[in-house]
Amino acid sequence: MIDAGRHFMPLGVIERNLDGMEAVKLNVFHWHLSEDQGFRVESKLYPSLQEKGSGGLYYTQAEIEHIVTYARERGIRVVPEFDVPCHTTSWFVGNPQLASGTGPYKIETRWGVMDPAMDPTRESTYQFLDRFFGEMIKLFPDAYFHIGGDECDGKEWDANAGVQAFKRSHGFKDNAALQSYFTGRVQKLVAGHHKIMEGWDEVLQPDTPRDVVIQSWRGPTALAAAARQGNRGLLSTGYYIDLNQSAAEHYLADPLAGEGASLTSEQKARILGGEATMWSEFVTQENVDSRVWPRTAAIAERLWSAQDVRDLPSMYARLAAVSQRLQFYGLHHLSSTELMLERMAGYPDPKALRVLAAVVQPPVGYQREELGHYEASTPLNRLVDAVAPESEVARRFAGLAKAIADGTASAEQWQETREWLVLWRDNDAKLQPHLLGSDLTAELAPVSATLSQVAAIGLDALDSIQNHRALDTATVQSNLERLKAAEKPQAVLRDMVVPPVEVLEQAASR
Amino acid sequence: MIDAGRHFMPLGVIERNLDGMEAVKLNVFHWHLSEDQGFRVESKLYPSLQEKGSGGLYYTQAEIEHIVTYARERGIRVVPEFDVPCHTTSWFVGNPQLASGTGPYKIETRWGVMDPAMDPTRESTYQFLDRFFGEMIKLFPDAYFHIGGDECDGKEWDANAGVQAFKRSHGFKDNAALQSYFTGRVQKLVAGHHKIMEGWDEVLQPDTPRDVVIQSWRGPTALAAAARQGNRGLLSTGYYIDLNQSAAEHYLADPLAGEGASLTSEQKARILGGEATMWSEFVTQENVDSRVWPRTAAIAERLWSAQDVRDLPSMYARLAAVSQRLQFYGLHHLSSTELMLERMAGYPDPKALRVLAAVVQPPVGYQREELGHYEASTPLNRLVDAVAPESEVARRFAGLAKAIADGTASAEQWQETREWLVLWRDNDAKLQPHLLGSDLTAELAPVSATLSQVAAIGLDALDSIQNHRALDTATVQSNLERLKAAEKPQAVLRDMVVPPVEVLEQAASR
Repeated sequence: MIDAGRHFMPLGVIERNLDGMEAVKLNVFHWHLSEDQGFRVESKLYPSLQEKGSGGLYYTQAEIEHIVTYARERGIRVVPEFDVPCHTTSWFVGNPQLASGTGPYKIETRWGVMDPAMDPTRESTYQFLDRFFGEMIKLFPDAYFHIGGDECDGKEWDANAGVQAFKRSHGFKDNAALQSYFTGRVQKLVAGHHKIMEGWDEVLQPDTPRDVVIQSWRGPTALAAAARQGNRGLLSTGYYIDLNQSAAEHYLADPLAGEGASLTSEQKARILGGEATMWSEFVTQENVDSRVWPRTAAIAERLWSAQDVRDLPSMYARLAAVSQRLQFYGLHHLSSTELMLERMAGYPDPKALRVLAAVVQPPVGYQREELGHYEASTPLNRLVDAVAPESEVARRFAGLAKAIADGTASAEQWQETREWLVLWRDNDAKLQPHLLGSDLTAELAPVSATLSQVAAIGLDALDSIQNHRALDTATVQSNLERLKAAEKPQAVLRDMVVPPVEVLEQAASR
Repeated sequence: MIDAGRHFMPLGVIERNLDGMEAVKLNVFHWHLSEDQGFRVESKLYPSLQEKGSGGLYYTQAEIEHIVTYARERGIRVVPEFDVPCHTTSWFVGNPQLASGTGPYKIETRWGVMDPAMDPTRESTYQFLDRFFGEMIKLFPDAYFHIGGDECDGKEWDANAGVQAFKRSHGFKDNAALQSYFTGRVQKLVAGHHKIMEGWDEVLQPDTPRDVVIQSWRGPTALAAAARQGNRGLLSTGYYIDLNQSAAEHYLADPLAGEGASLTSEQKARILGGEATMWSEFVTQENVDSRVWPRTAAIAERLWSAQDVRDLPSMYARLAAVSQRLQFYGLHHLSSTELMLERMAGYPDPKALRVLAAVVQPPVGYQREELGHYEASTPLNRLVDAVAPESEVARRFAGLAKAIADGTASAEQWQETREWLVLWRDNDAKLQPHLLGSDLTAELAPVSATLSQVAAIGLDALDSIQNHRALDTATVQSNLERLKAAEKPQAVLRDMVVPPVEVLEQAASR
């Protein structure tokens, strides 16, 4: 899935990512096309949807047809998602009659769960959706049609007397029941157009028709519940590639793990597979490839492999080769880093900046939102946006540090470990004079200094281990405190050299 | 101009090059859309043109409209070219009735001047062109319409008894006169659609209407003749960016130089400017940017500058900055080299191959055709295709060698000169073990060995100059012979270190 709602993704992004999907045998492209922050498809029946709801950034119908053809030529189906009844602010800018609130509405510029929700009590809402879905379904020949259904906070419903009266008169005990009513109506519209409805976890209710497909963001337990109830489903928990987890973590996630393992074989057959989701709060067309690739190749291998295929070193060895191939196929996941580093530096071949960039990572999960204020218009051009989600260099160095701590390191590994640490210790002196040139690099001054200090601690530890002379307790304690402090993100970046140096320091204390 | 006929150029190529044109204030995109090797536009009136003549590689009318809009948004006009009556083999595959020969015709796969030519004697030819032009003119709102008109060898006309009889009955003394008749008819068709006709040198005849614009590939003398005759014109000689000349050569070419200088001011006003032409025999979508940029930025500056702006060091200093900016705007001219080197090498970060690649250049002019057999299907994935047309490193080194030969070199320049020569001398030992991995790199073995030998000669010369001990005559003669031999292209590559080492050797002989 690519979210073209929060940050618009031009055709070129979609095309080259379809090329990448073909290369790793991913066969369904789920296109998230409407969000609070943007309505991204041309409607000829309701042109105010894109005219008022997109800021001019939307796909024409001809472009949609082009992508559907492009995907089909690569053996890939396209499932569109129009997320209702929430995540719909952009619909309401030109069509406030669909909303439960009083408006007026503006295209949302913040991130998060928003209050606006469709009015589920009015027949006109369903008439609108029926006609709109009919128009869209002509563009997307696939048998499945995704209606979203996630994250309704219910605030607009609670504030609307008419909606409240409707709930009472229908005996709906809460907003979940009200949404269930809405979903049931929408499902009939979709079925009326001869399509199979797909939705996120929230659409699953006891009376949900059996052919509705559940996409689970809540996890294997929720997915297993859907399968027990007789619905088909697919897992996205564990495959949220916007969250900057490691390829290893994604690789070990399995749609039939956890609660899924206890399903009967008939129930297991209802688990269709998994889906990597590229939500776009923190990516633009420039760096989106670097979040999708190469880690999605590891997810593809997971989904095409038996459950007992879990050899991480083997996966990483092959992932490096696949990553290089993917750039020959036209993906920008490697070149975008280089380009962004050069732009930040302001001069060609910024060697010292590259040394730093190679060992820092963006925060995982939703931590970035806590480390700064971000809106749709915030430029995503900092080092955190340029670097890969997973540092290859740091992963390699962690392996070296472990070998040394375990006493299994070869002479070459000792040598390489020392060379890395010397490189990092000495890099700060080369980099600092260049960092004051722009705001984009000025924030990196403490990041670079910290890397140098961490490397110096690592070199001391290395000497101590090599000379079989344990560091004294006070030194170790002081160093571990400094390392602990260095774990804290600076400039929204994690220094990935810290954990392996902690391993060396622990070994040096013994 | 971009030639999309010989090698098709997908929309992304056109878009990013329009972005580059906008950045350097180039305001007319001349789109060469039909060739012996391909007919690249969808015609709804004559669909056999693209269905039989393109191998499936053509622009739909929706795509053409998209590009025209995309260009207009960037202040760029689009002038289409449909080259007639020659360079038309692809038209004849599905429309042999247009041809002077008997056919059957196949899409041409070779390069060069081909025999097929439209039949200028049949009214049906003009009826076809009139309807076809009418359809195309609706797609291209610009006031100008380019009909080509270049390079007719006349062989099909000579072999056609009907054409010969037509020539006699009309009193045409040669095929040029026959083509002139054809061009006159075509000009009336174009004028009938309210467009101003543009054509290459050949369309200029004594009776050519005054509003026809002449694009000159023959040079300033031909262009001046057009201006004297009252026609407007523009220069492309000197701006053939497919020929791998230096930015300096392009920069010093001027539409009003040579014969143009002798024109009256009224005649000079008819010279509209110049146009860089990217013919595509030896480029694909992958490396075309590296031939267009950054050198076209130098041409743009020429065309926007007074004639006395001729400071080459200043131009090169600014060109380097512009080149870096252009990559931020999305051009691939730098990244394509890296990508192709990595693919050739088969491993990431191929340092030693990069050292070699940085000092070799493709042959200039039409020499490449003499150094191998090339057809439309020949892969363009060798080192000659990957490297830039002008080596920045070699240009820099030539400056150092000159300073040393002139006795003006600073201590830093002496030091840098030596470092380069040592790097090149020692690079061969690092690179050779990797070269046998593939055919693409195996051919580089002698290129790499030669660079090492040339660098060794350069180091000897450097020592001799530094120690004020002239090399003996026999050594100098032997070295100069070896350098002369090293000037000869190997693997279709020129070693650009040779000329500056010759300068050092000459200095060492004194």
